This record gives sequence, structure tokens and C-alpha cells, in this order.
Amino acid sequence: MRAVIYDGTAAHYTTDTPQPVADLAAGQSLIRIEYATICSTDREILRGYRPDFQGVMGHEFVGRVERSSDKALVGQRVVGELNINCGSCLYCQTGRPHHCQTRRVIGIEGHDGTFADYLVHETRLLHAVPDSLAPEVAVFTEPLAAALRIVEQVHFDPDAPVALIGDGRLALMIGQVVALTGAPLTVIGRIPEKLALFEDFSVARLLEPSGSYEIVIDATGTPGSLPTALALTRSEGTLVIKSTYAGDARINMSEVVVREITIRGSRCGPFAPALRLLQRGLVTLPPVEVHAPQDFQAAFDSPAFKAALDFR
Amino acid sequence: MRAVIYDGTAAHYTTDTPQPVADLAAGQSLIRIEYATICSTDREILRGYRPDFQGVMGHEFVGRVERSSDKALVGQRVVGELNINCGSCLYCQTGRPHHCQTRRVIGIEGHDGTFADYLVHETRLLHAVPDSLAPEVAVFTEPLAAALRIVEQVHFDPDAPVALIGDGRLALMIGQVVALTGAPLTVIGRIPEKLALFEDFSVARLLEPSGSYEIVIDATGTPGSLPTALALTRSEGTLVIKSTYAGDARINMSEVVVREITIRGSRCGPFAPALRLLQRGLVTLPPVEVHAPQDFQAAFDSPAFKAALDFR
Repeated sequence: MRAVIYDGTAAHYTTDTPQPVADLAAGQSLIRIEYATICSTDREILRGYRPDFQGVMGHEFVGRVERSSDKALVGQRVVGELNINCGSCLYCQTGRPHHCQTRRVIGIEGHDGTFADYLVHETRLLHAVPDSLAPEVAVFTEPLAAALRIVEQVHFDPDAPVALIGDGRLALMIGQVVALTGAPLTVIGRIPEKLALFEDFSVARLLEPSGSYEIVIDATGTPGSLPTALALTRSEGTLVIKSTYAGDARINMSEVVVREITIRGSRCGPFAPALRLLQRGLVTLPPVEVHAPQDFQAAFDSPAFKAALDFR
Repeated sequence: MRAVIYDGTAAHYTTDTPQPVADLAAGQSLIRIEYATICSTDREILRGYRPDFQGVMGHEFVGRVERSSDKALVGQRVVGELNINCGSCLYCQTGRPHHCQTRRVIGIEGHDGTFADYLVHETRLLHAVPDSLAPEVAVFTEPLAAALRIVEQVHFDPDAPVALIGDGRLALMIGQVVALTGAPLTVIGRIPEKLALFEDFSVARLLEPSGSYEIVIDATGTPGSLPTALALTRSEGTLVIKSTYAGDARINMSEVVVREITIRGSRCGPFAPALRLLQRGLVTLPPVEVHAPQDFQAAFDSPAFKAALDFR
């Protein structure tokens, strides 16, 4: 089958990766990939973020189930969560499956990913996509779930000001989720064309951080924005960090203590509410830029909000 | 009157500081200091932590009210909060008076402190000390309140493990407050003699950080303990920072994000519950080491858990 493989150093397109058609293990499904989208984590892998990973890249997808431990799912269009948890460790038994101590993550750690014709995945991690939802929209389920993780973790007072730093793909999802709470939202970005996409639901500011906010969300992807993010956060307010990057970050921790700031790391989120919001059309998405699998490098290099590999 | 004055560079003992006996402003009290205790913040001031402050040092005290806007308080032994808030700014009007934007802090910012025969303070910030409570115990109200701030901010599950890093004065208060929740507590310290004081209410470990904890409290006073503190915190757990220090701290923020750690800065706390715990004898205190005001340098240099200047 076709696949984009990471060999520990670089990514390659192949057509001779063995197709996973052998017997499925208990509780698994075989999914025919339609679209697999690029996330900044995939780009980070190419920069050495996951030196121990080798295999099919990618963790976002929409596809159709061909075989499954759940017969009712066969033929169904699905999206799927990326963390494969063990079910028995401390974290799995205390409601934190995303933090399973022996988890595998499709396309990132210990399990082949979604940049291929086929994916074998745990049936329990799949979510049926309503027929009314186009696959080009459904591929946004995972990043929208990651945005929803913030409102899952932090209570948003609908009358308290929120600032979002960043104007990228994830920021666009986060901004819309925050605006749905009714909270007044200010977005601080760097690129006018991207920032324009935020204007319908927020006050968009180009490099003009000012004011004070109960909740500040850093979705810039770089540690350099931390001082600004901290300065914008009200005392006893909350600073949500959505960015991962190599190396340590520097922060004025005494200011965090004296102003009693809460910092919350935020990662993967719930798929079901993401699908509900997408189905209701409450989240506006820019068009997906589609590339053939062999043109994966162009997709990786794309400045578009969302680039997808088309395996149909 | 006698006083220990900070001139912007160093501390000096004087006997010719004018006594504040003029008319009190509305809502103020004149307090005759009995004991004023040394806090690490006072030591930080001598290291340049507050270059803009000049005046009488000190923010912890116990004393008797000589004159007051509240006649019922005259003759009463009191302790007092250190933050003088305006009552009208955003923070004062949203339940965050300790973060008042124009606050003064006795002995730290914009208001004379407690290392003197007399202190003029806002009556509303005073708390009556029960007659049954010795002044040598009551002087621990402020640091115990700072410890109680943690349980005011963070919910402690009494069955979830907690680690406390640090074996100093504040750590001893924090450890006892945490142990009163019923939570299993591990204390990680560096000095065997200090660590011995924690053994009645915790598992005390000398430089042996291991295991994982739902809540980790860093009360070391140095940024160097942050990597250990982070490593001990369970994913989706909470890391409480009680330490302030000059300069930035380095932290692996990607780990904070991926493991969805919550970091909470924690500062001043509530006096009333501190007085209740002290009165009930639920917090064991080491003896206070008492010095004459002119020997303030010896008090500053004391390795004792609590050093006090005796103004009686």
C-alpha cells in the first residue's frame, strides 16, 4: 500500500509497505483512509521531536471501516483518537487514559499512523462521523477536540475577558471554541491574512498585546511568547499553554508566585463534542488544501490552515 | 522609638525614628509591637529584592492596640495582614484584595513595617489574638496563613499522595496544614536536623525524591528544585510553587503541556483559620529564637526556624 514512512531521520513515500490485512486482534478495526491531515506535531517529528519513532506517520484521519470487531461499524465513516491506552495503569484507572503510562500514539509512538491506505486501530477509539458531515470537515475533529480540551480543563466565565496568542491552525479552533462560551475574546497574531479569519468572532490585534485577561491561551508554538502571555494574565488568572517545543522555556516564576497565576498545560481533547459542534456548523473552517500522498513534502511545507493527503 | 530601617541598600538599627503618635487617619490603629519575626522576604530585601522600598522593615508581628478607630480593640493583642488594599480597583472588587493594583505592603512596599516599637496599621486588617494564645505562638499566624493559602487554592483529596520539597520555616507550616487534610505526605529535605521536625506527620526523606504525587509543593526557595518537583508530579497533577527568587526560572514547558500539569503560584493566605488552628494546638511550632532589636543582624543570620525581635 501507499504510505509516508518516517525512518528515524527523514520521511519517505513508498508504495510497497505491506497492507495490514492479516487477522485483526480482538477489539480492532481496519480503516480505509480517505484523508489524513498534517499537524504541527508531524513537522516536529521531522525536526527530531520523536527520535525513537519509526513507521507510518500521521495521527489525524477520516476513513471508512472495512473490517471491525464491531460489525455495526463496517462501512461507517469514522475518525479516531490517537492515544492507545492500556486500561489498567494508575492513569487509566483514575480517568486519565490520555496519560496512560504505557500508551502508544498512532503515528507518534509505537504504532503506525494514518499517512497510508490503511490503518489498524482500536475499535473503542473510533467515532462514527454523521453522514451529513463532509470528510473534509470531519478531518478537523482531532484539532477541534484539542481546542475543546481547554474548556474541559478550565471554567470560562462568559463575562470575563480572554486573550488568545497565536493565529495558526490550532488557534483558529481554540478561538472559535472560546467565543462559543460567550466570553469576550481578543486574538493577538502576527500575520494579517491569518488574523483576518478571526475577526468574525473576536477582536483581532496585530502585535498589539495590551490589557489584562482572566484567561490567556498561548497557542503560538514558541517559548518566546511566554513573557507576553504572562504579562497579559490577570493576577489569580489562568495561563493555558497549548504549545510544545524542544528544550526548556524561561519564565519569571516569582511573578507566577506573587501574582498567584495558574499555568495549565493542555493537550488532547474529547472527540464527541467536537463532532457535535462540527455537525451543527458552529465552527467555521477554512478550506483544506489537498495533496497526493507522493507530494507529502508540499503538504508539509504548505502555509495553508490545513493540508491533507488524499488516499481515496 | 527603636526601629530597624532599610535605607535602600542596607539595614540599620536606630533609636531616633519618630514615634507615630500624631492623629490616626480614619480606620487606623496604633499598635505597640511585642514581637516582630523575620521572614525570608526580609532577607531577600537585604539582597536587593525591593530596591524601591525604604523605611521600617518587617511584616510579621504580634502586639497590643493602644489607640484605634475601633474602641473595642484597644488593649487587645492582635496580629495583622500585610497587604493594604485600596478597595476600589478591579482586584479589590472581584475578591482578590491581596492583588490590589495600588496595594501597599507593610515593611515591603510603601508603608513602614513592624521592626519598631510602634506600627500604624489599618484596623480592618487586624485580627484579635485569643488570650489563651501566647504571643510567641501568635507570631506564626502570618506564615501559617501563607501555608493555608495552598488548601484555599487547591483541593486536597485526603487519599491522594502529596510531596513537599523543602525543610524550612514555611515548609514546616505547609507540611502540618497538608497533613491535617489526612493526605499521605512525603517531605523531601536536605538537612537531617530540620527534617526530623517533619517526622511526626509525614514520611521524611533526605534527598531521595522518588514516586509520583497528585500534588507537589515546592517550598525550597530556589529555582533549582523545579525539575525534581515536575518529575514528581503526576500527569494532570498540580505543582504548587511557594518560592520566590530573583531572575527567571527554567522549566520544561513541553512536559507541562504533554503531561497536562497545573502549576499554581501561591502567596499570602487567610489569618482567621491560622488563628483557629493555633488556638486548637493543631500545629506544632518549634521555639522562637528571640533577639534584642539592636541585635537584628544576629536574628537575620539565625538558622532557627523562627527568629524574633523583642520590642516588649
